[in-house]
Amino acid sequence: MKVRILVRLKPGVLDPQGRAVHHSLEGMGFDGVDDVRIGRMIEMDVVDGTSDETLNTMCEKLLANMVIEDFAIEKLEGEKETA
Amino acid sequence: MKVRILVRLKPGVLDPQGRAVHHSLEGMGFDGVDDVRIGRMIEMDVVDGTSDETLNTMCEKLLANMVIEDFAIEKLEGEKETA
Repeated sequence: MKVRILVRLKPGVLDPQGRAVHHSLEGMGFDGVDDVRIGRMIEMDVVDGTSDETLNTMCEKLLANMVIEDFAIEKLEGEKETA
Repeated sequence: MKVRILVRLKPGVLDPQGRAVHHSLEGMGFDGVDDVRIGRMIEMDVVDGTSDETLNTMCEKLLANMVIEDFAIEKLEGEKETA
């Protein structure tokens, strides 16, 4: 089963990397960009039947810093058969 | 309009960060993880009507390193009205 985890900074947490990218885009002539936030994407192949609870625990303990980050778990279609 | 850009390493490109995370997950007792790949997520607010071509150019020129990375552009539902 393919799982995608998106980790993003919580609203209100300063994102200097996003700000730098925003500034660069403007410098390159791309107007009309309002806000840029940068996060992480983690794609994993896990065995079918891995529970949501297990995935949540992985995120809380390792993949995201819960003090400043939120995460979202997406199960992707076109699952790889591992069972 | 909210746009999400996912930047991931091309297949075959070594991902040491993903490997380290995979190793840590195993060390923490999470079995059943087959493969871990780590990429970037860039979320932007752009004005409505921004063309796909413009978004592609942003990715190719700044947001992704086309030598080793691929990107995917997702337009998110629940668009913010800026027009």
